[in-house]
Amino acid sequence: MNYNKIAGQNIQRIDAISDGVFAVAMTLLVLDIKVPIADAIRTEAELAEAFFALMPKFLVYFLSFMTVGIFWTGQSTQSKYIERSNRKLNWITLLFLLFVSLLPFSTAFLSEHITFKFAVGIYWLNILLLGVTLYINWRYAYKNNFVTIADDQKESVDSAISKRIIIAQTLYAAGAMFCFISPYLSIGIIIAIQINYAFGIISNRKEKK
Amino acid sequence: MNYNKIAGQNIQRIDAISDGVFAVAMTLLVLDIKVPIADAIRTEAELAEAFFALMPKFLVYFLSFMTVGIFWTGQSTQSKYIERSNRKLNWITLLFLLFVSLLPFSTAFLSEHITFKFAVGIYWLNILLLGVTLYINWRYAYKNNFVTIADDQKESVDSAISKRIIIAQTLYAAGAMFCFISPYLSIGIIIAIQINYAFGIISNRKEKK
Amino acid sequence: MNYNKIAGQNIQRIDAISDGVFAVAMTLLVLDIKVPIADAIRTEAELAEAFFALMPKFLVYFLSFMTVGIFWTGQSTQSKYIERSNRKLNWITLLFLLFVSLLPFSTAFLSEHITFKFAVGIYWLNILLLGVTLYINWRYAYKNNFVTIADDQKESVDSAISKRIIIAQTLYAAGAMFCFISPYLSIGIIIAIQINYAFGIISNRKEKK
Amino acid sequence: MNYNKIAGQNIQRIDAISDGVFAVAMTLLVLDIKVPIADAIRTEAELAEAFFALMPKFLVYFLSFMTVGIFWTGQSTQSKYIERSNRKLNWITLLFLLFVSLLPFSTAFLSEHITFKFAVGIYWLNILLLGVTLYINWRYAYKNNFVTIADDQKESVDSAISKRIIIAQTLYAAGAMFCFISPYLSIGIIIAIQINYAFGIISNRKEKK
Repeated sequence: MNYNKIAGQNIQRIDAISDGVFAVAMTLLVLDIKVPIADAIRTEAELAEAFFALMPKFLVYFLSFMTVGIFWTGQSTQSKYIERSNRKLNWITLLFLLFVSLLPFSTAFLSEHITFKFAVGIYWLNILLLGVTLYINWRYAYKNNFVTIADDQKESVDSAISKRIIIAQTLYAAGAMFCFISPYLSIGIIIAIQINYAFGIISNRKEKK
Repeated sequence: MNYNKIAGQNIQRIDAISDGVFAVAMTLLVLDIKVPIADAIRTEAELAEAFFALMPKFLVYFLSFMTVGIFWTGQSTQSKYIERSNRKLNWITLLFLLFVSLLPFSTAFLSEHITFKFAVGIYWLNILLLGVTLYINWRYAYKNNFVTIADDQKESVDSAISKRIIIAQTLYAAGAMFCFISPYLSIGIIIAIQINYAFGIISNRKEKK
Repeated sequence: MNYNKIAGQNIQRIDAISDGVFAVAMTLLVLDIKVPIADAIRTEAELAEAFFALMPKFLVYFLSFMTVGIFWTGQSTQSKYIERSNRKLNWITLLFLLFVSLLPFSTAFLSEHITFKFAVGIYWLNILLLGVTLYINWRYAYKNNFVTIADDQKESVDSAISKRIIIAQTLYAAGAMFCFISPYLSIGIIIAIQINYAFGIISNRKEKK
Repeated sequence: MNYNKIAGQNIQRIDAISDGVFAVAMTLLVLDIKVPIADAIRTEAELAEAFFALMPKFLVYFLSFMTVGIFWTGQSTQSKYIERSNRKLNWITLLFLLFVSLLPFSTAFLSEHITFKFAVGIYWLNILLLGVTLYINWRYAYKNNFVTIADDQKESVDSAISKRIIIAQTLYAAGAMFCFISPYLSIGIIIAIQINYAFGIISNRKEKK
């Protein structure tokens, strides 16, 4: 028997390692917000000032938590349908988790160099690679019949998941382009896209129509 | 099919990511207690002195571990009843976890500036946001019939969970107000409230009556 | 309905948060072993020397990993029988996890001050508090009928678990006493006790007889 | 009843602690890639330069993530068949996890001293110890009938898992030997071996024949 035929099929463990990596990534992000040191602070006003000086860090933190949250939601939505796995799907997931685990770096990099196009570009590249691996994950699982969906819903679920990733990535890429005008504007647009996806403002309106 | 209709329903994964974030938050807190460096220590007495100088840090650590523990207990109590989810409930939970992941920062901030009202205020704000998102989490799940409770217990469980959050938050807010007299007093009162909730001293007396 | 009657019964989540805290504690310990900086190293021999200079750190690391492993094994052995929970058992477990999460500190403290009795004492105190809370955890669960064991095995399982903690703690306390002769001797004896428990050398001999 | 007869049988918890340790190890690795500090950077070109100067760190990161991924895949493949446990198997797994938790150190050590044979040797030693404990884990579980496999597949599954570890370790050892020519060459060969295992290039060709 070929080892590759039996490896990577432990779907419960794939879910568990994913949640673990996501949870650590979410929580490590906060280590980038350094507490102002006591020696430099003498009055309440100075402490408040030092705190509000951290606001750009909090902004980036919020951005990154949403990024991690969006991709976690995306992956957990997919994984509800994916009930079998093989060695290749296992490794596609691990590659996706590699880019999740790089987010604390990209976030800290952006946070430290928020006025530079290059930093926005690196952050966007991380988001792109997350999108690409998540997309490959779904398409591979779907094509190899690792998913369990009622037959009459199969195509529409597939289309909904695939479209979502493509449209979101197109918007992120467009948002990232604005860094050539202003990195702050670019980050603002990316956050706006993410808030829309997280809270579904535009799509909700459509549903009500 | 609209993607938003299928996203965020993976309730097992929501529980798993929650436990992951809580576990890391609980454990990261300890990194704030820095071990005294060997060079400065020559005798047993000096080492003991350096250790006991860390007591304010341990106090804040204990406070924070209880805070995390109380909200973990609160969320796990709710989640035992919540058996379904949608995209919105998914994001309410993630928002709650965002504030959990901020606790190591608020804790370190309070620990470093324990004599300042402002630091107590930030810590309290974190507790407030945890309470608000946990409350919204329950009310949203309850109103949208995502909970599974025997019909004759439904209202009393709902009332017990909702009341608990509101009363606790009222007490925390009152405790935080004491920082205008003394930050130490304020922290002392918050710890007293938490010990009461953790070990249920007052409510136990009531039960026995 | 009293909130305290419904809180803390989510036994799956108690297991999950425990594994999370243990996993982070196990892995954080390694951060205490600092990699020697490149600037100071010019030859293979210097690098090897710098590496072997870390051996006391590795020794303490090994000690701590075994400590965490022993208490994790102890708790997971108990939890296999504990199938129900209430708010009090929930908080006893959280208190136990508080002492687990303090281990990276106690370890770093011992590692930095390995020649001091006081550092051995603090480390032993941490082990003692772990043992005490684990013991209370079992006795409380057992007395309140939260355990599920076949009737004819009930007493012998209870006795085996209780005795194990008491005997182990007695040995640890004895081992810690040797720090008045030499801290290194004391650590050596504690490691010897732990290796015996982990690999069951003495008890295996008895079984074979 | 002997405590050792009831300890370490909680196979669900063994899986959970494993995923936790692996997840933290995977994510901690990134902390070794330090973000260049803002003060030193004035232009986009300087930032890009500082970023690309981190490439050796990213290379080592990629190497280590693959190492962790390969051993996680190996362990989760085994654990799908292992349905029972005893105290010894429990401790063999913990020993394996000890070496997993040491990987962030070995990685940082290699990353800081990438031009030294000694650093490649330490990294290889870590891989070897992972392989040895994983091999013992399987053989012990198989020999003691802790596995559940259909009778007609039992021997071929056993042979596939055992052979895989032995062949992979032989290749790693060979790759590590090349550090006597050049540490970079040695790392390159190890990465090539790992990519082959992760994406199964050579074995796939064989299957198609």
